[in-house]
Amino acid sequence: MPSNPPLSALENREEFIARHIGPSPDDVPAMLEAIGATSLDALIAQTVPAAIRLPAPLPLAEPRPEAEALAALKSIAAKNRINKSLIGMGYADTLTPAVILRNVLENPGWYTAYTPYQAEIAQGRLEALLNYQQMVIDLTGMELANASLLDEATAAAEAMTMARRISKSKSNLFFVDADCFPQTIDVLKTRAGFFGFELIFGAPEEAAQQEIFGALFQYPNDAGEIANLSGPIAAVKSRGGVTAVAADPMALVLLKSPGEMGADIALGSTQRFGIPMGFGGPHAAFFATRDEHKRSVPGRIIGVSVDARGKTALRMALQTREQHIRREKANSNICTSQVLLANMAGMYAVYHGPRGLRTIAERIHRLAALFAEAMQRAGVVVLNKHAFDTLRLDLGPKAPSVYQAALAAGYNLRQVGGGVLAVAFNEKTTRDDVAALIRLVAGVGVDLDVLDEQVRQQDALLPGSLRRSDAILTHPVFNRHHTEHEMLRYLKRLQNKDLALDHSMISLGSCTMKLNAASEMIPISWPEFADLHPFAPLDQAQGYMEMIGGLENWLQAITGFDAVSLQSNSGAQGEYAGIVAIRRYHASRGEAHRDVCLIPKSAHGTNPASAQMCGLEIVVVDCDENGNVDVADLAAKAERHADRLACLMITYPSTHGVFEEAVRDVCAIVHAHGGQVYMDGANLNAQVGLTSPALIGADVSHMNLHKTFAIPHGGGGPGMGPIGVKAHLAPFMADHVVQPTGGAQRPNRGQGAVSAAPWGSASILPISWMYIAMLGGKGLKRATETAILNANYVAARLREHYPVLYTGRNGRVAHECILDIRPIKAATGIAEIDIAKRLMDYGFHAPTVSFPVAGTIMVEPTESESKAELDRFIAAMAAIREEIRKIEQGVWPADDNPLKHAPHTQADVIAEWDRPYSREEAVFPLPYVRENKFWPSVNRIDDVYGDRNLFCACVRTEAYSS
Amino acid sequence: MPSNPPLSALENREEFIARHIGPSPDDVPAMLEAIGATSLDALIAQTVPAAIRLPAPLPLAEPRPEAEALAALKSIAAKNRINKSLIGMGYADTLTPAVILRNVLENPGWYTAYTPYQAEIAQGRLEALLNYQQMVIDLTGMELANASLLDEATAAAEAMTMARRISKSKSNLFFVDADCFPQTIDVLKTRAGFFGFELIFGAPEEAAQQEIFGALFQYPNDAGEIANLSGPIAAVKSRGGVTAVAADPMALVLLKSPGEMGADIALGSTQRFGIPMGFGGPHAAFFATRDEHKRSVPGRIIGVSVDARGKTALRMALQTREQHIRREKANSNICTSQVLLANMAGMYAVYHGPRGLRTIAERIHRLAALFAEAMQRAGVVVLNKHAFDTLRLDLGPKAPSVYQAALAAGYNLRQVGGGVLAVAFNEKTTRDDVAALIRLVAGVGVDLDVLDEQVRQQDALLPGSLRRSDAILTHPVFNRHHTEHEMLRYLKRLQNKDLALDHSMISLGSCTMKLNAASEMIPISWPEFADLHPFAPLDQAQGYMEMIGGLENWLQAITGFDAVSLQSNSGAQGEYAGIVAIRRYHASRGEAHRDVCLIPKSAHGTNPASAQMCGLEIVVVDCDENGNVDVADLAAKAERHADRLACLMITYPSTHGVFEEAVRDVCAIVHAHGGQVYMDGANLNAQVGLTSPALIGADVSHMNLHKTFAIPHGGGGPGMGPIGVKAHLAPFMADHVVQPTGGAQRPNRGQGAVSAAPWGSASILPISWMYIAMLGGKGLKRATETAILNANYVAARLREHYPVLYTGRNGRVAHECILDIRPIKAATGIAEIDIAKRLMDYGFHAPTVSFPVAGTIMVEPTESESKAELDRFIAAMAAIREEIRKIEQGVWPADDNPLKHAPHTQADVIAEWDRPYSREEAVFPLPYVRENKFWPSVNRIDDVYGDRNLFCACVRTEAYSS
Repeated sequence: MPSNPPLSALENREEFIARHIGPSPDDVPAMLEAIGATSLDALIAQTVPAAIRLPAPLPLAEPRPEAEALAALKSIAAKNRINKSLIGMGYADTLTPAVILRNVLENPGWYTAYTPYQAEIAQGRLEALLNYQQMVIDLTGMELANASLLDEATAAAEAMTMARRISKSKSNLFFVDADCFPQTIDVLKTRAGFFGFELIFGAPEEAAQQEIFGALFQYPNDAGEIANLSGPIAAVKSRGGVTAVAADPMALVLLKSPGEMGADIALGSTQRFGIPMGFGGPHAAFFATRDEHKRSVPGRIIGVSVDARGKTALRMALQTREQHIRREKANSNICTSQVLLANMAGMYAVYHGPRGLRTIAERIHRLAALFAEAMQRAGVVVLNKHAFDTLRLDLGPKAPSVYQAALAAGYNLRQVGGGVLAVAFNEKTTRDDVAALIRLVAGVGVDLDVLDEQVRQQDALLPGSLRRSDAILTHPVFNRHHTEHEMLRYLKRLQNKDLALDHSMISLGSCTMKLNAASEMIPISWPEFADLHPFAPLDQAQGYMEMIGGLENWLQAITGFDAVSLQSNSGAQGEYAGIVAIRRYHASRGEAHRDVCLIPKSAHGTNPASAQMCGLEIVVVDCDENGNVDVADLAAKAERHADRLACLMITYPSTHGVFEEAVRDVCAIVHAHGGQVYMDGANLNAQVGLTSPALIGADVSHMNLHKTFAIPHGGGGPGMGPIGVKAHLAPFMADHVVQPTGGAQRPNRGQGAVSAAPWGSASILPISWMYIAMLGGKGLKRATETAILNANYVAARLREHYPVLYTGRNGRVAHECILDIRPIKAATGIAEIDIAKRLMDYGFHAPTVSFPVAGTIMVEPTESESKAELDRFIAAMAAIREEIRKIEQGVWPADDNPLKHAPHTQADVIAEWDRPYSREEAVFPLPYVRENKFWPSVNRIDDVYGDRNLFCACVRTEAYSS
Repeated sequence: MPSNPPLSALENREEFIARHIGPSPDDVPAMLEAIGATSLDALIAQTVPAAIRLPAPLPLAEPRPEAEALAALKSIAAKNRINKSLIGMGYADTLTPAVILRNVLENPGWYTAYTPYQAEIAQGRLEALLNYQQMVIDLTGMELANASLLDEATAAAEAMTMARRISKSKSNLFFVDADCFPQTIDVLKTRAGFFGFELIFGAPEEAAQQEIFGALFQYPNDAGEIANLSGPIAAVKSRGGVTAVAADPMALVLLKSPGEMGADIALGSTQRFGIPMGFGGPHAAFFATRDEHKRSVPGRIIGVSVDARGKTALRMALQTREQHIRREKANSNICTSQVLLANMAGMYAVYHGPRGLRTIAERIHRLAALFAEAMQRAGVVVLNKHAFDTLRLDLGPKAPSVYQAALAAGYNLRQVGGGVLAVAFNEKTTRDDVAALIRLVAGVGVDLDVLDEQVRQQDALLPGSLRRSDAILTHPVFNRHHTEHEMLRYLKRLQNKDLALDHSMISLGSCTMKLNAASEMIPISWPEFADLHPFAPLDQAQGYMEMIGGLENWLQAITGFDAVSLQSNSGAQGEYAGIVAIRRYHASRGEAHRDVCLIPKSAHGTNPASAQMCGLEIVVVDCDENGNVDVADLAAKAERHADRLACLMITYPSTHGVFEEAVRDVCAIVHAHGGQVYMDGANLNAQVGLTSPALIGADVSHMNLHKTFAIPHGGGGPGMGPIGVKAHLAPFMADHVVQPTGGAQRPNRGQGAVSAAPWGSASILPISWMYIAMLGGKGLKRATETAILNANYVAARLREHYPVLYTGRNGRVAHECILDIRPIKAATGIAEIDIAKRLMDYGFHAPTVSFPVAGTIMVEPTESESKAELDRFIAAMAAIREEIRKIEQGVWPADDNPLKHAPHTQADVIAEWDRPYSREEAVFPLPYVRENKFWPSVNRIDDVYGDRNLFCACVRTEAYSS
């Protein structure tokens, strides 16, 4: 800094750029020298084809300091008005226990973790997810649960497609309870259309009137009514149909379970187990079924296995069902789920336990029962025969004035229409609220204790015949952690088992584990964002509307697109939403027959899985020897399928970590044959500020806000996958049946929804808002350049140890690089997975393994890693190469060496030692490790054993008791 | 729960009681059985003398659920109004980096830790404190710094008494810069009076006009003026006086340091290094001096030593200076300091580094310079010749209207009087603020960039002659962690080295490590509490006034006292404030000569240290063989000193963990001889709801809010030590010269202050408010009963392994119990400290060691520990006893066994092993440890080596780099 810099320099308005970006200005020259580039600009010029470079800086605002951006967002948030929402419809206000709020949602040890592919360093959140699965199993009365889906509506859609997979009926009819939530029906319609299913609607008793492959019931239903579904379920099953019940988990604490009623599938949302409504999400949907259907379940399942020492160890089970392996034959395209929220919901059950949950559920129900009784005594017509927490009142012509009076008193009721209002009580509802509502609706004051004394012994609203009698949550984990100290320590104990970004770099190729800054995270806890019902009147959500509008504008500026939809709440959902828009576009032009999707061999498995869900036939395009799309093959296939060509799905820069030169030609070829170009957004972080999907030639692209725009991975979700489109596709983006997403002026009016909530996981959008606001256009570009710098630095330094598989025209990689382990494997038997596990001993999470090329590892350091951290990683990789050399040289046997035994645990070094290497070589292989050791809590896990002996519930163990 | 419980039961309004209290209702019977008591009531009746039992329940409100209490406090907080305070006077608004806010202040791994007496499991915060000391050393230009004092005013008072200790002058005169902050002068006057020092005031040049033992200068001074103090310092020193400089650390980033100007002592507040003003505190004061004076320094000093393997290890140095060892001969009565805040301030420097700090300091100064220039050009008289950030404007008759206009625009200026206003800029001040203020004061608009261009090269306000030229913060720790990832990981790495309540019980006798609930902590981060200047107009602080008033009322109800003062910001300060009130009371009755203080032998060292600071002569009272106060000895000494008897200082229940039966007699004897009874509040948590200090006979008592009322220990502070008094003492409690604490109607008007801020560490009072609100009278009583239950359970279960030294009449202990290790030591050489260190291997922090009886350990489990946790601790202690038996039996040598080698580290088990016990016995001695291992990061530390080779700054090490 020169002496006496100007005030503008002292103001340091770009402070966040230096906080977000790892290498300091002092580090960059040394890194460039290692790469052999003369300047950062030169490196970028060598890396990104000139033809696709943006002609001008991003039209975004200047960077804003952290405190200023926070203050600006706070003043936007203040434009939201937080009424008490008694709207129901699958969203209920809830109390997040403070110990969970502080120590999970607000703790980077939980929220910065990655999906638990490397299970040995993820046993904490795997145990938490197992608790969640056990909770779901207990509440639903089913035998197997997965570790969350995205929302209730898409879970219902997954149930429909699973029903198709397991039903023996040849029918293409799917029955839907007419009293399912409207947003669920909206999503089902979208999904069914492209699968060629026909939906029929009716009351549960009507389900078996025709042959159907499956049926979905809502329990309690949209009207709050509760029916014993045993009869309808049996009837459907007797005709070969598969039955699914969408249920409210809080109601299930009291109600006979779907399992007891014979259902094949149970699903729903765990939002009301301590997760803020957040204007629609994120929340974890649950999904449970019978053991016999385990191989047909969508989404991730945590299962129990053993490690190399025979110790119980957890990991993701049955991965062969998933899109990353089965591609278009996968059960679903889902990859990111809602791990952070599932863990919170599971911990809510752990903290309250069965007695605490029962008290909460009984209280909610009692308040509803008292309200119903008071209504009836006052002569107000209650339409429900039975109910848990939701009542419909027939108020006739008084309905609008009662609705308005309630609004004025701070209560959002639901306007059902036809003189009917609905009121749904929740965990936050108090007796004062009930008394106030009775006064509002019936004009009478009631002594609730007196009323309670009179009615509590005879609950007509929820008679014994509808109540469950089985014990739930009997596992010790739900009965031990009911004091805050026990809970706090349990959370810390689990957290300590997991390696997250607060320990070291997670250089996951294609997954982009950049900094999730505290200033980005702080706003999501603000009640102004957290406590809004997704269907609250929009005049209460003006803060959200402004924040969402701003973010949409920024994303349009960054991608070059003309419109953005924020509805899709994961990357895979974004792909689906994008392909849906393409299909609708073609159909609008009379070209609904266009049903071929070109996908390069190197694509993420999600691409074919998503395309298949839209009824597309996948045609695979070859790659050339350099890993690039084989343009000739593409041209040939585009031409061959020209009549039916719907689209190309392409990732850019490629999944091989290269900026392909021919990308514009590729897009032109597709367009020339009547197809649209879908760009997978996984690598958008290598484009921001340098090029853009629209400039390159894409018609639609999704954006992984949880990769490129700093939303943390949460240990495996939440994600957010908004799409951007060119103008011609804008009318075909998702709308929402309950809460239209664009108002009258938006062209997408009336298009079926793809997700349950109008703006997806709205409550985490502030993270991306803050990220963009603080970096500004300048910082975003700098971030991209630095991501490329860091990747090229790693490639340059590691090239002497491991061949870099693919590079671009000038020998540069993009933002990630693939290291080829196949020669090592051929020579020594040491595989990429051994290196991955060995990295744990060095304190690092492995990069991406065997994707997109088997036998390789793909390193993406991101811009947020400092040179010092990169150097530690490089040192670790180099040291591992030296270890491999000892195997090559015969110093260590091929099957008894630190790589094959990796990772090493405390149990290893305590036990007798008969290895050809020392304990110190095992666990402290480099000096830096000694000062900051991360201990894997189990040895290498036996995946095969786990899948052969599938067990996906809490293990009965007294391990932790003394 | 019976079927269909009433609504009132379902509302579960006592939920927090079950969260706070460890044993579940199901556990209590088994615990009572182990104790041999028939019921909890019976146990309490056997434990607490009937004569002192409260006749009625506490007159407090019913317990409130967590969410309701939070909402109630939020609505109180909303009554505070947050203006931009430009008042200065030692408090400046500042930006807490979000990464520090979230991961230190809001993370239980940092805030629930205890004072680092057990250094082997406290290396994280010890390193953070060493950083803090290094920062202070660098900024002040001194050679040695301590690890914080309570506030700037008391630090100035400590400097005065230290000057007396080290000055060779016989004078009792102490010179005080008349332009010291008024609250500093207020506290100095209080302190000087009882020491018999005479204060003389003047300008620095006048300091050496008489022989003085010391002088205090303010730099920059209260008027914002900066003088080169080298001349006055040299002059004072030449006459044998000791010079102290109270300085602003942000100014010191730019200014010539006190060390360079020759000062002997530098002190001040680090508040503006990222610590919210919080209406007065808590903040860490700094204190630095020359190496030659190291043994005269007050407060805690962190020093470098080595462990048993010769590895660098940190611990508290030179403890022989401290009150817990030196008692009335200690340098100070301070024990709790402000560790959490010192760590945050140190981390602020780590995160910004020297360049970042310079940018901030230059910006603050530049804004002041631009403002001054604009004023001068507009013809407004600026009174400062030189300034860093604070300017005085002579506005004549316009002053009141300008002040009001600023207020209306959201700016708090300082009214100096005589037509003068002061404005002090800070880290949050923006160019828009400066432009607005220029417009407000001078009525002109100014283009600041143009003005900046004109003036920035010639800074008349801060010429080169006043600027420092030396490098600061050159240690790598201040130059490595400037990105958020690096900072986050550094914080996590340090946190992982420390055992805090989020890992396991810390059963510290007399220190009461109960639950610090998340709901209690959440409000302290609210801007409504965090961002208020302590001298803001009180109409902006109505939320604080209501919260403080409520808390005072509750504390009065709990203690039985008639008035409460919240000013004293630590327990030791509370003792001082209480004794001051007693002395003032006696003086008001013409009995200023009463100067004898009776203190039982078993008292905390703080008692005599505090009494000595009030000019009292300590007369020690014996204890009888049961550990109780020897009533005969007390009576004899009270009678012997009846003419001079000022007071008795007594702890109740006693520091021996017993409810003494004779306590009312003891109080009566003291009163009969004209003395007052001061009750040490350390064990108040064993009284709440069962008895009270006032009922027992005390006239004044302090309350450790950080023990009894759930403020976390913060790793060694903050604490809060309000006092309660009977009506006759109320007029003699501390007032405050700047912000009168009680308004016109309070009788303490005009009494000198004891602390810098009017209501002490106001911003953490919400913690105790929430604690009391959520437990209510019922929960508070239950907490006390359970604390007694837990202690008796531990005593009953451990009695067979270790003798319980003292019990009450019925063989019961109070809330803690002393285990006698002396027989073991005599038989085996295994000392209490060996057991303490061995407990680390079992995952526990040691109880209190060798207090109040050498050779013992004192266990206080608190009410927040579950039976399961107590059982783990008991199992650990029992297993250790078995280990000792192996030494007794000769299985293990007396000098080569797991106790003498404890604690064991990772380095131990990795290294060659030649011990007579196994690695497993060393580090996994019980099964529960294996699942939740806490690793001490160093082996046993050599205290003697460290004190002999004193080094109290950051070590130059490259240990963590690869």
